[in-house]
Amino acid sequence: MRGFYIGRFQPYHNGHHRMVEEIATEVDELVLGIGSAGDSHSPRNPFTAGERIMMVNKAVSDFDITTYAVPIEDLDRNSVWVSHVQSMSPAFEVAYSNNPLVIQLFKEAGVEVHQSPMFNREVLEGTEVRQRMIEDRDWESLVPDEVADVVREIDGIERLQRVTATDGSERVGDDGSRDPNPC
Amino acid sequence: MRGFYIGRFQPYHNGHHRMVEEIATEVDELVLGIGSAGDSHSPRNPFTAGERIMMVNKAVSDFDITTYAVPIEDLDRNSVWVSHVQSMSPAFEVAYSNNPLVIQLFKEAGVEVHQSPMFNREVLEGTEVRQRMIEDRDWESLVPDEVADVVREIDGIERLQRVTATDGSERVGDDGSRDPNPC
Amino acid sequence: MRGFYIGRFQPYHNGHHRMVEEIATEVDELVLGIGSAGDSHSPRNPFTAGERIMMVNKAVSDFDITTYAVPIEDLDRNSVWVSHVQSMSPAFEVAYSNNPLVIQLFKEAGVEVHQSPMFNREVLEGTEVRQRMIEDRDWESLVPDEVADVVREIDGIERLQRVTATDGSERVGDDGSRDPNPC
Amino acid sequence: MRGFYIGRFQPYHNGHHRMVEEIATEVDELVLGIGSAGDSHSPRNPFTAGERIMMVNKAVSDFDITTYAVPIEDLDRNSVWVSHVQSMSPAFEVAYSNNPLVIQLFKEAGVEVHQSPMFNREVLEGTEVRQRMIEDRDWESLVPDEVADVVREIDGIERLQRVTATDGSERVGDDGSRDPNPC
Amino acid sequence: MRGFYIGRFQPYHNGHHRMVEEIATEVDELVLGIGSAGDSHSPRNPFTAGERIMMVNKAVSDFDITTYAVPIEDLDRNSVWVSHVQSMSPAFEVAYSNNPLVIQLFKEAGVEVHQSPMFNREVLEGTEVRQRMIEDRDWESLVPDEVADVVREIDGIERLQRVTATDGSERVGDDGSRDPNPC
Amino acid sequence: MRGFYIGRFQPYHNGHHRMVEEIATEVDELVLGIGSAGDSHSPRNPFTAGERIMMVNKAVSDFDITTYAVPIEDLDRNSVWVSHVQSMSPAFEVAYSNNPLVIQLFKEAGVEVHQSPMFNREVLEGTEVRQRMIEDRDWESLVPDEVADVVREIDGIERLQRVTATDGSERVGDDGSRDPNPC
Repeated sequence: MRGFYIGRFQPYHNGHHRMVEEIATEVDELVLGIGSAGDSHSPRNPFTAGERIMMVNKAVSDFDITTYAVPIEDLDRNSVWVSHVQSMSPAFEVAYSNNPLVIQLFKEAGVEVHQSPMFNREVLEGTEVRQRMIEDRDWESLVPDEVADVVREIDGIERLQRVTATDGSERVGDDGSRDPNPC
Repeated sequence: MRGFYIGRFQPYHNGHHRMVEEIATEVDELVLGIGSAGDSHSPRNPFTAGERIMMVNKAVSDFDITTYAVPIEDLDRNSVWVSHVQSMSPAFEVAYSNNPLVIQLFKEAGVEVHQSPMFNREVLEGTEVRQRMIEDRDWESLVPDEVADVVREIDGIERLQRVTATDGSERVGDDGSRDPNPC
Repeated sequence: MRGFYIGRFQPYHNGHHRMVEEIATEVDELVLGIGSAGDSHSPRNPFTAGERIMMVNKAVSDFDITTYAVPIEDLDRNSVWVSHVQSMSPAFEVAYSNNPLVIQLFKEAGVEVHQSPMFNREVLEGTEVRQRMIEDRDWESLVPDEVADVVREIDGIERLQRVTATDGSERVGDDGSRDPNPC
Repeated sequence: MRGFYIGRFQPYHNGHHRMVEEIATEVDELVLGIGSAGDSHSPRNPFTAGERIMMVNKAVSDFDITTYAVPIEDLDRNSVWVSHVQSMSPAFEVAYSNNPLVIQLFKEAGVEVHQSPMFNREVLEGTEVRQRMIEDRDWESLVPDEVADVVREIDGIERLQRVTATDGSERVGDDGSRDPNPC
Repeated sequence: MRGFYIGRFQPYHNGHHRMVEEIATEVDELVLGIGSAGDSHSPRNPFTAGERIMMVNKAVSDFDITTYAVPIEDLDRNSVWVSHVQSMSPAFEVAYSNNPLVIQLFKEAGVEVHQSPMFNREVLEGTEVRQRMIEDRDWESLVPDEVADVVREIDGIERLQRVTATDGSERVGDDGSRDPNPC
Repeated sequence: MRGFYIGRFQPYHNGHHRMVEEIATEVDELVLGIGSAGDSHSPRNPFTAGERIMMVNKAVSDFDITTYAVPIEDLDRNSVWVSHVQSMSPAFEVAYSNNPLVIQLFKEAGVEVHQSPMFNREVLEGTEVRQRMIEDRDWESLVPDEVADVVREIDGIERLQRVTATDGSERVGDDGSRDPNPC
């Protein structure tokens, strides 16, 4: 049986890793959908899809299941999102998610969805990892070693810190440093 | 004379209904533009364009004018919005709106716009109806009976409640349950 | 040597003008990229690209360098933004910016970027100019005379005030007057 | 039971009309999806979605079933086309088509499709009607009277002839008069 | 009075130049809209918008009128094309074109259009110039000197020849060398 | 060293397989970019990205290098294509292609490109395989066994034959069966 698990993986961290570990007890193959694949270089989405493919592939290589890391670009239309995912991904029988919108969309499309109380932790940790990266505090302990290697190789901390920088209060409010078209 | 009245109709409620009633005294035919037609399954836009067409068509069937329910997808460019609307809609001589941006865009394009003090109520009620749906309080009294029928038929309350769910505080802030690409 | 300087120029004001003055001491030719070119008729982006071209061209005509005002539409993908800019602009050797994201994107693409402490002021002033326009306070002293002429010619103050209007508290929150699809 | 029948309706002609007549014997309600809704002013798609809504609504008013004319903009992705149609249209139980791609897409999505040998005629006639319009030959006899009225009211023949004009052989080949960006 | 003249300018050649010369007798200012601005590196559209801005600006600098070279990206919707052009361009009172579709769109929008029998030549020459470039025959005599300089500076002939190459008959038909996604 | 090789893989066939075999002698890791990832259900692009990921992954599993199958959606702008590919793919040092446009785009971006005379065969074979599938002639001998398995599992022959069907000469010309919006 093949399962599908979507995340933004910005970056792939221990919360994701524990989920994959749990899912691996139920399926033979797992598609890891890399969401918002077109986004990068922003405080919430610092890494490109290609960089996230590297993180995911290296980190899950130990598990004893076949995995596929598949970037999924945003379509920004909830009503066609499931069809979009299904066209980009190898066919799957069950989706794993604790996100209420994802669950609703899959259910309306007749796709089986599995939830797990432990899934909630993943969300907390994504924000926490990026915040620690920005503040130069220990983030390596929250991600698999392979992910830390990738982040360092691409100078990921420097990038995240730069795109988060606000140059003091001037940028807050109207303009914001996340927009490449300032002033 | 044919008029044009745009709204998101999420859902079509008594405020809209009173407006159509008033407009019906001035025109023979009325186009009801269903705005943000591509949006659905979100707290602010729970219903699809097709579902909203059903609500509008059933609710206005009593009025003694010819009506057209026309979905209008967002183009996200204010400067071409009027041309977009005009290409999607049967030709109209007057637009009805109290929205300052809509008024400004139509006026710059040379289209006559009618305003009415009572139009303001429509805005208040849209938010109120959705909030009551989320909290399982009486919402049926704020919409025409035909709309309540449609909402129930499509399990609309369950959908709105699910896509609004936040699973506790974990989702607030960085990730948000409105994004199908969590974590 | 040809330089590149991007801004939204909503409107082009004295802060921009001082920057161009400083840049003009370093380059022979300067491309002024008009960012978010497709946006207009909103509180943050009231003027069209065409109107901004007029402002920029008239205001910089005194400088003793060759200038190009080039509208740059948003692509909404940071990873291809530099390539997009490079395809729309005459070739340039150096970019001028104090925006951290712009700097990061140009640097990753191998483009030289110059910063200047004085650049910060530009941001403050864009918001200030629009706020004064909305409140009918003196804004003319913050922009070159040629820009004030353009704004008056297009009834720019009236437009900005209208698209910023909220019709009282009813519009705040769920709907907002910036969205042409209200209710 | 509600059915769905899609066409470009450029214009709505007697072939379409006979199909609706036949479908009307099987369903109570019929959605007429107006395909390629964003296209207009070209030899193959001369009329806007709004103009086609008028043609369809006026022509089908005699039938004893409830009809909905719904513009469907192109998404240009076959894999999500059915979801797109379903979100824009009131829910339907059966689709009517003789187009092999439409049939295949609906079948893969589990939607029932009805075919009919007579459906083929519709295709032939669309090209024929436009050709006659271009050549100023009798086209009125191929469309319902209400459609002829709409075409005349919008100066449709003049428009079609103009956008089909090629100014002699110069335009053939590389450039083509259908592209608003010549040379 | 300000005029508007659109072309793809691939490249800007003597036919365009003669048109600008003629238009210059009627207007004080002229906007040269650079159409299909996002296209480049193809047999029909070899040059980027930025490269074409350079060609146009250098070539028209001798004329005694104020000129603006403005890139216009395709929107692929004829019905909103005029609004799109008007938002990107400084305001103009008259448009110059011999393209039937352009004329029709401007006329339906109420914009005055001037035609000229000599305009036809521009079309012929665009194809001819590119064909000569591909075949290494004399093309310089068909364009202003300044344009020839730009083409050489950017290695334009080599680029056009490469993107036109077909590697023999293998590429003809199904795949084509114009598509970056072969096989 | 990591290489990049792009194709549409409709389907992945022996020509592709021999290329990967040759490339595998030069690199340790290879990214297989699945081009036109959003296209499917058409005569030239019958299979979805997800289906092609399955074909590629199963077929290359024997090679002694690490491979990544990465879907690449079309952006339709040659000038940003390389940046788009680089953001979607794990970083690579060399690209493999015989497509003149791909070579030109990579070279202008400073990416090393390797060509090989044998690469030409891949193009011929893609068309040939699909033609045989349509005509129910032997196609299995032109693809790896794993690919044939995938095609059969998804009823790929039936799909290709259906979306290629033209229902006789009626569909040829104006309408075409490839367009889901006929008539």
